[in-house]
Amino acid sequence: MAKKHILIVPGDGIGQEVTAVGKKVLDKIATKFGHEFTYDEALIGHVAIEATGNPLPDESLEKMKASDAVLFGAVGHPKYDNDPSAKVRPEQGLLKMRKELGLYANLRPIKLFDELLGASSIKPEILKGADILFFRELTGDIYFGEKGRKNNGDTAYDIAEYSRFEVERIARKAFEAARTRRKKLCSVDKANVIETSRLWREVVQKVATEYPDVEVEHQFVDATAMLLIKDPRRFDVVVTANLFGDILTDEASQIAGSMGMLASASIGDGTGVYEPIHGSAHDITGKGVANPLASILSAALLLDISFGMKAESEAVINAVDKVLKAGFRTRDIADAQTPADKILGTDAIGEEVLKNL
Amino acid sequence: MAKKHILIVPGDGIGQEVTAVGKKVLDKIATKFGHEFTYDEALIGHVAIEATGNPLPDESLEKMKASDAVLFGAVGHPKYDNDPSAKVRPEQGLLKMRKELGLYANLRPIKLFDELLGASSIKPEILKGADILFFRELTGDIYFGEKGRKNNGDTAYDIAEYSRFEVERIARKAFEAARTRRKKLCSVDKANVIETSRLWREVVQKVATEYPDVEVEHQFVDATAMLLIKDPRRFDVVVTANLFGDILTDEASQIAGSMGMLASASIGDGTGVYEPIHGSAHDITGKGVANPLASILSAALLLDISFGMKAESEAVINAVDKVLKAGFRTRDIADAQTPADKILGTDAIGEEVLKNL
Ligand SMILES: CC(C)[C@H](C(=O)O)[C@@H](O)C(=O)O
Ligand SMILES: CC(C)[C@H](C(=O)O)[C@@H](O)C(=O)O
Repeated sequence: MAKKHILIVPGDGIGQEVTAVGKKVLDKIATKFGHEFTYDEALIGHVAIEATGNPLPDESLEKMKASDAVLFGAVGHPKYDNDPSAKVRPEQGLLKMRKELGLYANLRPIKLFDELLGASSIKPEILKGADILFFRELTGDIYFGEKGRKNNGDTAYDIAEYSRFEVERIARKAFEAARTRRKKLCSVDKANVIETSRLWREVVQKVATEYPDVEVEHQFVDATAMLLIKDPRRFDVVVTANLFGDILTDEASQIAGSMGMLASASIGDGTGVYEPIHGSAHDITGKGVANPLASILSAALLLDISFGMKAESEAVINAVDKVLKAGFRTRDIADAQTPADKILGTDAIGEEVLKNL
Repeated sequence: MAKKHILIVPGDGIGQEVTAVGKKVLDKIATKFGHEFTYDEALIGHVAIEATGNPLPDESLEKMKASDAVLFGAVGHPKYDNDPSAKVRPEQGLLKMRKELGLYANLRPIKLFDELLGASSIKPEILKGADILFFRELTGDIYFGEKGRKNNGDTAYDIAEYSRFEVERIARKAFEAARTRRKKLCSVDKANVIETSRLWREVVQKVATEYPDVEVEHQFVDATAMLLIKDPRRFDVVVTANLFGDILTDEASQIAGSMGMLASASIGDGTGVYEPIHGSAHDITGKGVANPLASILSAALLLDISFGMKAESEAVINAVDKVLKAGFRTRDIADAQTPADKILGTDAIGEEVLKNL
């Protein structure tokens, strides 16, 4: 029996709907396993801008630091996307949260539930058995370097930057994880062109000497984008920089059938943050059709990684598996064979998961 | 009947083998259509470094500028890839060629030959009818900005940069092409985080007002990497920055069944350069198994774009189509159903194409 304080940070768009379901699952786990989970909520993103003018109010940041883990939704709003000159943006809140909490390692496990083999646009015989764990660096790269305009605004620039220690710490986390898996690590860069990538490769090569039991390969990001689709089973642990990781993990979501299934853990120096990799999806917001399984699986990661509750985490994953085995789907993971009465909305599929807990 | 001077620049690895086949096809076209094509050769990449110490010798550059078109192979060598501190690299030759020839627009058509529907790891029903034309900006972005080290080499940096006119000219080329196709343009950026992307979006939005007949959408690069696999048919023309284009077009090669099928045209202020999108592939170099069809299709693009020879270009594409219809394959595009005697090497499949011309 443990006492834990969890901060719920729904953010924007479907973040609200799916995080509410993720929270219910945490609550049920507490009851079932006799833990005491307390909750609070905080604002981030567009909703925070609307309420306070700030995409990450100090109050939210304080609450994050004071909590044992954060269950996060998504940020973003089309209003800013279509206005390239907007000065205040929802994403600034997300990036500030990552930086301030020192969340330098973003873990994105890509694993297909067998029942969803048919939901992917990739052939089942290519997918079957694919199981990849991405380590995306999350507090460096072009995301956090200086950026701006010059020549009267006619030229824009962004500085990508990495320091040795930043590469080293994420590489080490990835090697440690590879040890507990199939002992293969693929480091992805663009060292034939980019200097930060050359530093990246240099450091990974050096860290590799401490893990002689792990087989290492270095791939260029362009080749990796191709290989992920051509032969996803060749990958075990993949470690890469912030921008490449952003692109490759979204791509890899297709290996798991749908983005709506993918959870992620952002960890580092303090409180861990757990979130679906899908975004705010304003096109389906408020319709009650968003897939909450990624938020539920993020809750499972939270239990495992931040609280060390393996059994609790597995209980959640098993419940999701049972719901899929029973044939229930949300719209995004349904296929031509799914009967209409098995296609559930956000809350209804959440209820099914709760029933199986 | 036209007189044209073509420079053959094989470069490294399989570049040598496939370009030789591409040249034979050009030669056959000249005979068949009564043109006079003259040829010269020039060095670039690792082979140029070995011979002269310089990845793009002045002599090569002069020959390029003096020719009517360049048929190019690939550059790269594992020796440099695994030595992040190498000062002279094959890729510098490629980048210098692009910059010096003002090749700001890289066209990469992604279209599946019907016979190859089975060769992709993506389901045929998702692929059928997919037809995308990428415009990748080729002389700006993080490829060409200042890069280096600081803090005693412990920090690496790369500057990404775009100026308004650079975005404008590639956007305009992409809009013009969209007009001759399905009138849809997707501009890809990461405007929610990157300043160069915000300038990109701003400029594309502005250019779009001149093309009210073209339907425009803006997508983030991460979402695009996902959508390309999930639903490739939603795309017509895609325009994007240098680095994003590098990643997305390699990924999109899976839509065409294999990287070995994809040709590209780099055009701009002067001589055009035509090349496969596959790289030097040292793992299969010298084995006679490389797929020369991308080089042959690059020759087709050369005839069409640099020489305005539509009939000649179509003759090449039809010949490739016939060879595929006859069941011939190289290893990379063969599948479980391909009989062993239909799997041909580089020269043999080249001969089949020549026979069908
Ligand atoms: C919303 C955006 C800034 C963010 C990112 O690029 O990191 C998102 O795509 C993600 O992957 O978490
Ligand atoms: C070899 C490399 C520098 C090059 C690039 O990144 O542009 C290649 O990947 C390409 O796409 O032509």
